[in-house]
Amino acid sequence: MHYFDHSATTPINLEVLELINKVQKINYANPSSLHSAGKKAKTIIEESRRRVANAINAEPDQIFFTSGGTESNNHVLWSMLSHHNAHVITDVIEHPAILKVLEYLKTFGLNYSLIKVNSKGRIDLKELEEKITKKTCLISVMLANNEIGTIQPIREIIDLMISKDILMHTDAVQCLGKMKVDVKELRVDFLSLSSHKFYGPKGVGILYVKNRSTIKSLILGGSQEGGLRGGTENVASIAGAGLAAELSVKYLKENSKKLDMLKLFFINELKLIFPNIIINGDSSNSLPGLASISFPGFRSDILLAKLDRVNIAVSNGAACGSGNVKPSSILSAIGIDEKTNLSTLRFSFGTTNTIVEIKKLLEELKLILNNK
Amino acid sequence: MHYFDHSATTPINLEVLELINKVQKINYANPSSLHSAGKKAKTIIEESRRRVANAINAEPDQIFFTSGGTESNNHVLWSMLSHHNAHVITDVIEHPAILKVLEYLKTFGLNYSLIKVNSKGRIDLKELEEKITKKTCLISVMLANNEIGTIQPIREIIDLMISKDILMHTDAVQCLGKMKVDVKELRVDFLSLSSHKFYGPKGVGILYVKNRSTIKSLILGGSQEGGLRGGTENVASIAGAGLAAELSVKYLKENSKKLDMLKLFFINELKLIFPNIIINGDSSNSLPGLASISFPGFRSDILLAKLDRVNIAVSNGAACGSGNVKPSSILSAIGIDEKTNLSTLRFSFGTTNTIVEIKKLLEELKLILNNK
Repeated sequence: MHYFDHSATTPINLEVLELINKVQKINYANPSSLHSAGKKAKTIIEESRRRVANAINAEPDQIFFTSGGTESNNHVLWSMLSHHNAHVITDVIEHPAILKVLEYLKTFGLNYSLIKVNSKGRIDLKELEEKITKKTCLISVMLANNEIGTIQPIREIIDLMISKDILMHTDAVQCLGKMKVDVKELRVDFLSLSSHKFYGPKGVGILYVKNRSTIKSLILGGSQEGGLRGGTENVASIAGAGLAAELSVKYLKENSKKLDMLKLFFINELKLIFPNIIINGDSSNSLPGLASISFPGFRSDILLAKLDRVNIAVSNGAACGSGNVKPSSILSAIGIDEKTNLSTLRFSFGTTNTIVEIKKLLEELKLILNNK
Repeated sequence: MHYFDHSATTPINLEVLELINKVQKINYANPSSLHSAGKKAKTIIEESRRRVANAINAEPDQIFFTSGGTESNNHVLWSMLSHHNAHVITDVIEHPAILKVLEYLKTFGLNYSLIKVNSKGRIDLKELEEKITKKTCLISVMLANNEIGTIQPIREIIDLMISKDILMHTDAVQCLGKMKVDVKELRVDFLSLSSHKFYGPKGVGILYVKNRSTIKSLILGGSQEGGLRGGTENVASIAGAGLAAELSVKYLKENSKKLDMLKLFFINELKLIFPNIIINGDSSNSLPGLASISFPGFRSDILLAKLDRVNIAVSNGAACGSGNVKPSSILSAIGIDEKTNLSTLRFSFGTTNTIVEIKKLLEELKLILNNK
């Protein structure tokens, strides 16, 4: 298979898988157990916590393991219920793990405002500033978009908030290993990550919390994760997530360069084949390796199926929660008409993709686009 | 290591681990992706769902995958917030994944009542019936206790509720593979399981829901798990959990017999070495393979440490959230005085333990108890 759907999920790094296996076999004890085997399991988790902390320039006690990016996002948002009549600000192109949660939490009295984005997917800072009220307790804006790759101006949002008592969350699930993720530079209060987006295992998320006193638990039980998140720790996968985070940052420079090169090569060659393509997002400020491309006159579901038939995996719209042919709300939000919306594919390249594979992709696209 | 702490967690079955590895390597795609690789990943999840459903006599669409037993319990309890001024009944020897959640949810207006247990750990049915009010929307009583093994009369609770509009949840995390878990016989509305308690991977829980309309989401996002639980599915571990559930039930008869035999042999031989032992719980109605034993005159933390030194792993009190020497609240609830409480060890045997290992345990205990 030629896999160009890395924004949906990445294949697991084999070194990471080897570590997971070793821990599964040997260190199966419960980290809360008091015997040596339990203590050793606990040590493995703490080692992984250090690795993740180093990867994003945090302190180990600011890192909490969850079951995924979706839980991390839910955790931050549900926690806002402890603020009386709280108001949250977010934007229209967030992941459903933000938008659906806020919609549901309205039932419990949590209010929220949605801010617009421009045609490149960048949030409207002026509108954001105007929407801040005395009740605003949280602003949640993703670091980079999963469908079009646009990077948001997180630090500029925080500059707006100076001397205002508002917490800042960013969903950075798409970012680790593709761009620098430094919590001290970003100055956010909360940041969500998901291990399976950076060649680690599925089932492990990370929640960075700058100050423990600003957040409440969502999943309560035992005193795991400093009492913030109960439940027996997924030791082996947590170990894998730590190693994957470390490797992501270790090879960030060369990997992001490679991803940029693959994307540029792909887009340039594609333009020669089919000059009518529309490239969505912000070409000057975007995640490397992600290309959202509309093919006017073609239906994306049919293009996807034709590529699938020759063993090439791409996405139309976001993968999470897809399975239908509704237009992407993200593409609508950046002003793309419905027909163009439904002719859009997302190509997301990964660190193991090669130019040879991209050439194969171009060759197949050429056949498909020329034999309408 | 001689591992007698299976109630804390079980080592992973190697056949299960092999399946997990295969899926990790080959079927890494996101189950929400529309290409063949994504659809194959989805198929793997649905196959696992069928296996789990078969194991507990449910329908596949009544099975929802979560990140663990703790999340499953939290999910049911948080969902009760959608009932106005809801009242929940539970008992004093539940896991913190019930008791801590209810305590926290008081903040949001959820009330709850705790019912007592007798000296064997069995709940007081009369008290339970008396505590039912018009506001009662849920009764949550575990199927078997994690520390003393006592099995609760779930069906008798449901008989009390006939013609009352109350939902019934049971935390059955300790039970699969040790006793029959049949949701149709139990007649519960919700049931929680955790894969790592039955030789499956950590990080996968199961929530059985009889009727989808009786529960709301806790972790929202994509439309995974029929829209009840968002987040990219932990495909490989879910596959492992399904196989582990299937194997647990396939070998239930011989395994539970073996666990009973090991426990009986251990207790009978131990009585010869140290006749003063006190066996806690309900010997006539208890999980096989779990023995909660007090050693009057000895401190459990010291006994645990001495056994640990000769590579034997046991538990004092419940493993989850331990790390201190506070008396066990479960043992206090069954009327055990503080000194005896602090002299109690939990031995929980597993399917791979042997008589030779139990003899080694007895030998070491003999040395320790005779050399006070």
